[in-house]
Amino acid sequence: MEKSYTYNRLLSFVKSVFIKIGCTENDAMLAAINLLSADLRGIDSHGVARLSGYVRLWEAGRVNATPQIKVIHETPSTGVVDGDAGLGLVVASFAMNKAIEKAKMVGSGWISVQNSNHFGIAGQYAMMCLSEDMIGIAMTNASALVAPTFSKERMLGTNPIAVAIPAGEENPFIADFATTTAANGKLEILQRKQQPIPDGWAQDIDGLNTNNAHTLKDGGSLLPLGSDREHSSHKGYMLGSIVDIFSGVLSGANFGPWVPPFPAYITMPENMPGSGIGHFFGAMRIDAFRPANDFKNNMDLWIRRFREAKPIDPNQPVVIPGEPEQNIQKYRMENGLELNEEVENDLLNLAKKFNVEL
Amino acid sequence: MEKSYTYNRLLSFVKSVFIKIGCTENDAMLAAINLLSADLRGIDSHGVARLSGYVRLWEAGRVNATPQIKVIHETPSTGVVDGDAGLGLVVASFAMNKAIEKAKMVGSGWISVQNSNHFGIAGQYAMMCLSEDMIGIAMTNASALVAPTFSKERMLGTNPIAVAIPAGEENPFIADFATTTAANGKLEILQRKQQPIPDGWAQDIDGLNTNNAHTLKDGGSLLPLGSDREHSSHKGYMLGSIVDIFSGVLSGANFGPWVPPFPAYITMPENMPGSGIGHFFGAMRIDAFRPANDFKNNMDLWIRRFREAKPIDPNQPVVIPGEPEQNIQKYRMENGLELNEEVENDLLNLAKKFNVEL
Repeated sequence: MEKSYTYNRLLSFVKSVFIKIGCTENDAMLAAINLLSADLRGIDSHGVARLSGYVRLWEAGRVNATPQIKVIHETPSTGVVDGDAGLGLVVASFAMNKAIEKAKMVGSGWISVQNSNHFGIAGQYAMMCLSEDMIGIAMTNASALVAPTFSKERMLGTNPIAVAIPAGEENPFIADFATTTAANGKLEILQRKQQPIPDGWAQDIDGLNTNNAHTLKDGGSLLPLGSDREHSSHKGYMLGSIVDIFSGVLSGANFGPWVPPFPAYITMPENMPGSGIGHFFGAMRIDAFRPANDFKNNMDLWIRRFREAKPIDPNQPVVIPGEPEQNIQKYRMENGLELNEEVENDLLNLAKKFNVEL
Repeated sequence: MEKSYTYNRLLSFVKSVFIKIGCTENDAMLAAINLLSADLRGIDSHGVARLSGYVRLWEAGRVNATPQIKVIHETPSTGVVDGDAGLGLVVASFAMNKAIEKAKMVGSGWISVQNSNHFGIAGQYAMMCLSEDMIGIAMTNASALVAPTFSKERMLGTNPIAVAIPAGEENPFIADFATTTAANGKLEILQRKQQPIPDGWAQDIDGLNTNNAHTLKDGGSLLPLGSDREHSSHKGYMLGSIVDIFSGVLSGANFGPWVPPFPAYITMPENMPGSGIGHFFGAMRIDAFRPANDFKNNMDLWIRRFREAKPIDPNQPVVIPGEPEQNIQKYRMENGLELNEEVENDLLNLAKKFNVEL
């Protein structure tokens, strides 16, 4: 069975599937590009592996393929976007474009989003700002998998934060990370290998440390960045909470344990206080602070100095945020994307179901 | 020897010392309030314990007691403030007031600051937004004590992030934390008790884990939030880097290993690329996103739901960020502030030196 696919082949396939569920040509293309950016950058858990999940959300009536996305409240530098239950992959681009528009006018733009769905990787939207000589910020809440410090209840999603910062001759600085010690995708890798997870990644249903990679299926929780109180898990809990409040409470979306689950078969939480899931985007024009060239020269200096920071092991230099992903992207664009058998079968099933070519 | 002091007594003393070094009446009062907010909130490492350090910076010519603080570049929602080497305690209030002014006009305000000095606790400035029905954000870079993942070189400060968010009937949500696993103040507590530090807080000069609470004096480093690669210290490194870039690179201040040290006796780094240390402030008007009352009702719901999250130990409920500090503040305002002998002697020396009453 074939395992390696070119980017263009996957792009065409994903776009066709989104068209089959009713998306416009433009939206389908946008959603396909945004979804595949995860695979290109090596975050395989958030890319085509989730395509069938998005389709099931549409089948369950939770994704609107033809949303009327609109700004429902705004000031010159801020606004709230209602995603009309559209694909997060489409809503998020709309919202970040609004933030960029505002930044062009008044220096910065900040958009909180309600009534959306999962949007893939946060970094993709933060990176939209780079070609505009802007700093981009993107975050989203997500269904609860993470227990706050001292709790055994799942209250927060893995709530990622992405920040993309332009440089000059160097590649941009791109941070994109879940506010947990380990992302769920890392547990899934160890599940497939039938290996235990390290201490400090997760706790079981009683709140005790566990090495069981399957603990989430048994009522366990992921741990906030920091792992335990002694190593400042309350800081990871605070970070996840800030993302939740900026994305959910500020927009009128759901928040905390009320954020709708990604798997369509899980019943929705009761007494939901808002609409859909929430995101938050920011765009800051560099030259709204100082001349862009001065900034970029200093960013080059920052990057070069950190790259040269004394390594503990001479064979493992300090990593500049975003560089590993940029290298993977370059490699995969040239050499194609390897899909594991499970994901490939999933796509083949979709191909058959919708009568489109993979 | 007397150990407990009323807030007003300490306020009057600190203000008098700042007047003696040449501050105006207004600046001295502001600096005293901002410095003492650390003691009031229980962050004793950042309050009056540092007063003599500020005085030594002034003696070394690094603090300008009569700065001409000004906005050197701006757009409707952004700007850069030059602190003219003033006390960070004064510069930071000026800058956050600018951010608030801009938020009143265009929904949000974002100020990056160059040519400043240490400003006490970040939370104090974020909290300035609460009475305006705004969300406040404050961060600062600081002299390098933290090694990036894979490095044995100090490249980043403890670079704190503070976010203050208004609620309705509940107390506001206030997060204020260093982007390291342990703040330096925690090491100092264990130094005084002559106890070892836990694994994962610091590494020695060779980059190896250490339990030596004095390791920073021997060339060791603090570790980014996450502690080690397996527990995602690269996320703490990215957070600290974002604070450094927003505070230092965006403003034209120093950044990374070039941030000036707090102790006046330490020589300044060579080839410094900017001016002084940098801060970053943000203010977002709640009603620039949605009606403030709707937001506050949802924040009350958020806070109550998280407070009731199932605890692991019924005697240790989940903590709402900011609540412990609010309780300490209430207690200390009523019962006075206890100073340890070392700090009290430090203040008595200042009292003698400047001929002011403690």
